[in-house]
Amino acid sequence: MSMRRLDTADAAFDAQFAALTDRDSPEQTEIDARVAAIIADVRERGDEAVLEYTRELDRRDGVAFDALEISRERMQRALDALAADDRAALEAAAERIASFAESQKIAPVRYHDDDGNELGQIVRPIERAGIYAPGGKAAYPSSVLMNAVPAKVAGVGEIVMVSPAPEGVLNEWVLAAAAVAGVDRFFTIGGAQAVAALAYGTEHIPEVDKIVGPGNAYVASAKRQVFGRVGIESVAGPSEVLIVADGTGDPEWAALDLFAQAEHDEMARAMLVSPDADYLDAVDAAVERLIADQPRAAIIRAALDGHGALIRCADLDDALRLVNAIAPEHLELAVADPDALLDGIRHAGAIFMGHRTPEAFGDYCAGPNHVLPTGRTARFSSALGAYDFQKRISVVSASEAGARRLAPIAVRLAEGEGLHAHAASAAARAGGGSTD
Amino acid sequence: MSMRRLDTADAAFDAQFAALTDRDSPEQTEIDARVAAIIADVRERGDEAVLEYTRELDRRDGVAFDALEISRERMQRALDALAADDRAALEAAAERIASFAESQKIAPVRYHDDDGNELGQIVRPIERAGIYAPGGKAAYPSSVLMNAVPAKVAGVGEIVMVSPAPEGVLNEWVLAAAAVAGVDRFFTIGGAQAVAALAYGTEHIPEVDKIVGPGNAYVASAKRQVFGRVGIESVAGPSEVLIVADGTGDPEWAALDLFAQAEHDEMARAMLVSPDADYLDAVDAAVERLIADQPRAAIIRAALDGHGALIRCADLDDALRLVNAIAPEHLELAVADPDALLDGIRHAGAIFMGHRTPEAFGDYCAGPNHVLPTGRTARFSSALGAYDFQKRISVVSASEAGARRLAPIAVRLAEGEGLHAHAASAAARAGGGSTD
Repeated sequence: MSMRRLDTADAAFDAQFAALTDRDSPEQTEIDARVAAIIADVRERGDEAVLEYTRELDRRDGVAFDALEISRERMQRALDALAADDRAALEAAAERIASFAESQKIAPVRYHDDDGNELGQIVRPIERAGIYAPGGKAAYPSSVLMNAVPAKVAGVGEIVMVSPAPEGVLNEWVLAAAAVAGVDRFFTIGGAQAVAALAYGTEHIPEVDKIVGPGNAYVASAKRQVFGRVGIESVAGPSEVLIVADGTGDPEWAALDLFAQAEHDEMARAMLVSPDADYLDAVDAAVERLIADQPRAAIIRAALDGHGALIRCADLDDALRLVNAIAPEHLELAVADPDALLDGIRHAGAIFMGHRTPEAFGDYCAGPNHVLPTGRTARFSSALGAYDFQKRISVVSASEAGARRLAPIAVRLAEGEGLHAHAASAAARAGGGSTD
Repeated sequence: MSMRRLDTADAAFDAQFAALTDRDSPEQTEIDARVAAIIADVRERGDEAVLEYTRELDRRDGVAFDALEISRERMQRALDALAADDRAALEAAAERIASFAESQKIAPVRYHDDDGNELGQIVRPIERAGIYAPGGKAAYPSSVLMNAVPAKVAGVGEIVMVSPAPEGVLNEWVLAAAAVAGVDRFFTIGGAQAVAALAYGTEHIPEVDKIVGPGNAYVASAKRQVFGRVGIESVAGPSEVLIVADGTGDPEWAALDLFAQAEHDEMARAMLVSPDADYLDAVDAAVERLIADQPRAAIIRAALDGHGALIRCADLDDALRLVNAIAPEHLELAVADPDALLDGIRHAGAIFMGHRTPEAFGDYCAGPNHVLPTGRTARFSSALGAYDFQKRISVVSASEAGARRLAPIAVRLAEGEGLHAHAASAAARAGGGSTD
């Protein structure tokens, strides 16, 4: 295969590029309506509805509700049954994810102003978190670690995980990862019905305070629809990588990195931008040369055909303009001096610096989270982290001198807003008062 | 009037309390459908649609689009025209809000692990923020400060404010507050059409990256529907206060604090919980005695009748159980020793400590933000802050030794997930390679 080629210098580039990165899907309204009906049904009928959808959509005819919950013992058995090296890899990854999450914990704020008023924010963990992990073909133990470990580090009281098991087939790696991450409860349910059950609770499934984790279009729609009732971290879209290359890297490494993104699914987006036309040719040749060896070549081809591109740019500044326009989930700086580009980057989910840092390190074990903002949402959101499982509570404690100083300011502004009770409430604290 | 009385010891309490705090509104689906149509219309017709809705819904017949934008000069004129004391109050509040926001800024993370890998998170401000400020009867300059000042402190590049001006009437305080806060552009539009315009952009209105600020049910629905396309801070519901009282406070102060919450609108929720029955009687009497003097007595009566309550509890531990069940937006600890209760509080938006710290201080000038999580969303979200206008970008830089150590872990986990290109991409970095 030969990859799509674009050039930022072409008059048609903006239009071509917009078409390539367009995310509006015509089916969205249908999906939203279908999901809304499922949520309403689960709210009304609880377990019964969850069981019916699971039997039908996950092809688990006649399964009993009790059989949908996986015990801690079962998770532990899966971990114990792993090959020693596999278990060591899982535990090493969990350890690195945990130590990075530790560095993210929100620090409380507390100080006194000149009038002796005490101001601050105390920090509390989310009490109960729900984690959605995709199942079936896309069951990834790494996603279980990436979602559950930061929650554990943040001090979440109970972690409830849901992950569908089509035809009842369990993924032993996923069970083992849940054991390593310290998942408290695990239900093999998925789709919009699982999100609805976590958001509203049923007889068997506890209501959670926040739902995180990736999923398909139905899961994403369900998360958006229950947002407000519970917290969510973001709404995930297709995964993306943008590689910025100066031509100093090995074209085969670049090809493999594009494959790594493209092999996720046909919707995955893998692009490389470079001012070096010969390098782009070399990467294209490497793609052709290496793709045949890829077990998932068919998916890779479909993804690269549909959403892949090798983009010629004028220079690295031109590349940075593209970076900030795309706000890529994953950004690889395959250049000799990645630090020189860092200041110019305003939007990205995660940055992988230099030739020796492939996205794959970040997907599994570098430490930073692989749950990242997709579809330009890096303009306003960040990687999942320990901070997503903590919240801040403001604390104000006025001193007597402070109350005397604050009251007249509040009174004046309250009167300006026509809120006379606010003014009276503030004024009462200005002077003495029966409480002294 | 006499306020509703509840007792946590009554068998019927849970049911009574659930009914009192129920938030499901039957009209929600209609509102969502109406809002979805407005958003689709604004996406399709841009300025033309925004202008039509504004002329109709804000009763601004025949207004031209250009007349909808307020210049920086106009904002400054409003500030210059304020009485000196009013201006001083506005500027003092802005200063206190800014200095608290400074304490909230997200610190970057950067460290090296044992293998010399560099790991961290860099912090970037939101590029363009949209701020929604209610207009008409509920136009509050304090909300302008509370939304715009933290954005400014975070380093947001451009702040675009929208606020409806029914019949074209401008609120000079709001214009002045926009000038003080450094709002860059200001359009007098509101409702779902304003949210849609900020989310998708029109010919005249720039597309923003995140939309914050309170609004009515249509605005809240619109924010939920555009979430994902842009960021939002939360979906605001009716404002709430819960006062925990041990009986050591002045009942009239408690009554005024209940009034201050209730005067916002008929949906506002004001409750007081105390183990001291005599104190509850005294507060009830103070409410009856003082309400007549309140210019907004009619609204206060409606709010207290509909959603107010004086709740008898067994002791302060019992009160804390109620606090955590309600997760109140505003929590006043009207007790002799508020610090003794702090550890027991898991969910609240903001806490006002002791008799001398009324919510009104926090509403205007204490420093912490008055945009707070409502409707039990304090279980998973926090006050608006500088951090809402910043985002984190993960940065990973593998050393040669680090790559040798990380590669085999990634390879093993990737193979476990059947993602062979991930494995190949990681393995390529394990040894030498043409890039050295």
